[in-house]
Amino acid sequence: MLKIADRAFSSRLLVGSGKYRSAQVMHDAIAASGSELITFALKRVELEQPQDDLVTPIQQLGLQLLPNTSGAKTAEQAVFAAKLARQALGTDWVKLEIHPDPNYLLPDPVETLTAAEQLVKQGFVVLPYCGADPVLCKRLEEAGCAAVMPLGAPIGSNRGLISRDFLQIIVEQAQVPVIIDAGIGAPSHAAEALEMGADAVLVNTAIATAADPVAMAEAFKLAVLAGYQGRQAGGRAPSIGRAEASSPMTNFLESL
Amino acid sequence: MLKIADRAFSSRLLVGSGKYRSAQVMHDAIAASGSELITFALKRVELEQPQDDLVTPIQQLGLQLLPNTSGAKTAEQAVFAAKLARQALGTDWVKLEIHPDPNYLLPDPVETLTAAEQLVKQGFVVLPYCGADPVLCKRLEEAGCAAVMPLGAPIGSNRGLISRDFLQIIVEQAQVPVIIDAGIGAPSHAAEALEMGADAVLVNTAIATAADPVAMAEAFKLAVLAGYQGRQAGGRAPSIGRAEASSPMTNFLESL
Amino acid sequence: MLKIADRAFSSRLLVGSGKYRSAQVMHDAIAASGSELITFALKRVELEQPQDDLVTPIQQLGLQLLPNTSGAKTAEQAVFAAKLARQALGTDWVKLEIHPDPNYLLPDPVETLTAAEQLVKQGFVVLPYCGADPVLCKRLEEAGCAAVMPLGAPIGSNRGLISRDFLQIIVEQAQVPVIIDAGIGAPSHAAEALEMGADAVLVNTAIATAADPVAMAEAFKLAVLAGYQGRQAGGRAPSIGRAEASSPMTNFLESL
Amino acid sequence: MLKIADRAFSSRLLVGSGKYRSAQVMHDAIAASGSELITFALKRVELEQPQDDLVTPIQQLGLQLLPNTSGAKTAEQAVFAAKLARQALGTDWVKLEIHPDPNYLLPDPVETLTAAEQLVKQGFVVLPYCGADPVLCKRLEEAGCAAVMPLGAPIGSNRGLISRDFLQIIVEQAQVPVIIDAGIGAPSHAAEALEMGADAVLVNTAIATAADPVAMAEAFKLAVLAGYQGRQAGGRAPSIGRAEASSPMTNFLESL
Repeated sequence: MLKIADRAFSSRLLVGSGKYRSAQVMHDAIAASGSELITFALKRVELEQPQDDLVTPIQQLGLQLLPNTSGAKTAEQAVFAAKLARQALGTDWVKLEIHPDPNYLLPDPVETLTAAEQLVKQGFVVLPYCGADPVLCKRLEEAGCAAVMPLGAPIGSNRGLISRDFLQIIVEQAQVPVIIDAGIGAPSHAAEALEMGADAVLVNTAIATAADPVAMAEAFKLAVLAGYQGRQAGGRAPSIGRAEASSPMTNFLESL
Repeated sequence: MLKIADRAFSSRLLVGSGKYRSAQVMHDAIAASGSELITFALKRVELEQPQDDLVTPIQQLGLQLLPNTSGAKTAEQAVFAAKLARQALGTDWVKLEIHPDPNYLLPDPVETLTAAEQLVKQGFVVLPYCGADPVLCKRLEEAGCAAVMPLGAPIGSNRGLISRDFLQIIVEQAQVPVIIDAGIGAPSHAAEALEMGADAVLVNTAIATAADPVAMAEAFKLAVLAGYQGRQAGGRAPSIGRAEASSPMTNFLESL
Repeated sequence: MLKIADRAFSSRLLVGSGKYRSAQVMHDAIAASGSELITFALKRVELEQPQDDLVTPIQQLGLQLLPNTSGAKTAEQAVFAAKLARQALGTDWVKLEIHPDPNYLLPDPVETLTAAEQLVKQGFVVLPYCGADPVLCKRLEEAGCAAVMPLGAPIGSNRGLISRDFLQIIVEQAQVPVIIDAGIGAPSHAAEALEMGADAVLVNTAIATAADPVAMAEAFKLAVLAGYQGRQAGGRAPSIGRAEASSPMTNFLESL
Repeated sequence: MLKIADRAFSSRLLVGSGKYRSAQVMHDAIAASGSELITFALKRVELEQPQDDLVTPIQQLGLQLLPNTSGAKTAEQAVFAAKLARQALGTDWVKLEIHPDPNYLLPDPVETLTAAEQLVKQGFVVLPYCGADPVLCKRLEEAGCAAVMPLGAPIGSNRGLISRDFLQIIVEQAQVPVIIDAGIGAPSHAAEALEMGADAVLVNTAIATAADPVAMAEAFKLAVLAGYQGRQAGGRAPSIGRAEASSPMTNFLESL
């Protein structure tokens, strides 16, 4: 089981709710993914009238809502957005995202730490999206974050775990769950994340924009199970330089 | 379904029978893998008395035996070994392996083509292990091979699909199944192979030498399903340079 | 010419002074490298008596001293160390390094930005070592740093530009020089850095610990020239999928 | 010095003569490259009147002509083309290229070995272009080839040494010079090839199609020197996992 704060999850796949071509497809894909933790941008809920067609079905399924602060460019904006979400949705959980840059949506490490410190003090369960920066992840953990969410590659790039050398250090040092976010563009990327020791992955673009999002959600579900089971079964075999000597058959064949 | 020659398989995972710590573990791992096509070295069968503890259970499970010619260093030796196997086991199927080099067990392209031509003429269903060489794969196909088995990385290296640029060309050009063999050291590697268009993978070392071979066999089974389903669902999303513009929430938050 | 603050350099290779087996080898390697900007840890100068065998020869050669704050774990310590160096050596230039973690010596983004802001206000020419984090680099630039020094890979790892996707974004966005620091373990890595748009590289371990440090310093000098000239000559040719059609000779040969 | 057959070369950079925008640019780029061994397709010489504007200047510069058999799809065609070249140009040297596939121009291993055997018997100095296949390279060497020319990546792809794991094995096993051909798209690729033990590289597209071919030729010349000197100076430093412990300054700074 994956434990975040005081809650346990049987799925290690988090999914987003954006970029789907219809609400129906989104719902079906979320169901197919088996995910129990669903992130969505605040913009997508009617803040005065939160029981919309996004939130209600997720709550009815018993899934954990994880509103994010996407769109915030400063700690102040992110804290404000988190409070709005708590008020509207009745959840303390928040995915903290602060990205001042409009081109690559890369997170701001300094604003993120500042906002995390404030939100933790105000009782939020904080899951910050951040660079694959081992020192920053440690500081976010020390600030009381419930997990860290380092990126595998720039968001939407579908490039996989290009920051794997740093992710490896993060996983080695973390004492809260490590959820790899951003850049995961294929089931094999998700499997690799779990194999290398990540506790979970978050996938949005690769599922939502697939030709068949429901089938792709299932593919990711399987891949996460495969990667996690592979790690439990002993992990990736070490790379070796030379193969073993050839078979005993050789001598027999050469004697003919 | 995966079709090779005149036979259809529901599993896209081929496994080997070598390097297991016991026959029992091997049998349990093969069962857990769901594989229907099992390769083994001739040395491992008693050629005069083939109903040994390896072959019999595989045949009882209704699985396809795929004897290989591992240990052969020339076309002549490989053809001889294939005939021995046919006589002893009653199967025309053969995985053709010719690797004169004792250090890396890399296949010999010239001897492999020569042997393939001879074996096809003699009625064998030939699946040749070969380098990730698109021209050679095409020639093996033209010679009548039932599939081609290009390597992902040196055998036993567990390095994954390091020859992926060439495998991509092979997959694009092939009109027989492409089964990626050698180098697959983790479930994520197997998923990637299927995602990129391979029809199947063969895994031996990574399962047989895992801390828990049975659990690892299941992990590979899941990974192959994940990769294949990911391809069916639309394949890997394209890599893009820049993220999409930030959310509508931005303007709202900035106006505060 | 590479311009940093108000000074111009004809060399785009910065070197360090640590890990050499003798002062003589260090001096010869620095001379062979052609570097005009030499970094060294404060520990290595006698703070009360700075005219030691490290500093004096560098000054006599007319090279720019770049003391670093290696060993500092907080902004406060780094600012203190920078002031000590200014007093002892009479230079405003400082390479800002803050790495609280003893295992990987990775930089702390938050402390680094805090210290940079303070040092700039106090008249220092600040070159901060930092993660390959585009948002952080932009903030360091906005704080008045004279250059940014993102890492290619963990220090001493000799892994090359494993953070190249992020370095590319940094180079694209920066309006101060980008000097790639840490991880450069071979001349080809240095050439790649310049090809991709970096303004300079800093190399220490790979030269100082080479079998022949003087020859290796020359190799890096050549590689930096090669990479820079390659960029000036038009940069890396784009990757293409298919080769051009074969030659006019084909028809002739086929007609024989 | 690089020795191929009975001739010694001070340059480890081979260049081609194709794809230049003018004969003048080609000549200037060849001169700037410092190359002493120039390959060109037969189509580009007037076979009846070989003293054309390509061949004459190369011969006047004292460089070794290396006609290639580009366009040949079979061993027979390649042998025929080599004989034409010998007759027309008075050189026994030939770069053997046989690529039946019009899309990727990848070499045919079987035809190449067959042609190499015939050409060696007929007194040619044979340099075969081939896949990065260690077994094939060994067989070409045993057939009497003067060097082997494995590809780094598909020709014209500019992808660098994507077959590096196999090139490493080839370099380790070869007893004739290994010249990496095809795929080298940037000076850093050439430097890496020399660092990893290749004896030389062949570059054509990346120079000929650069914005400034003459400057790019110089960049490659420098890169080859850098890579070779880096290897002589001790080679790439090994990748390590953890950095060294922090500096003695730490204790001092922490005591403040």
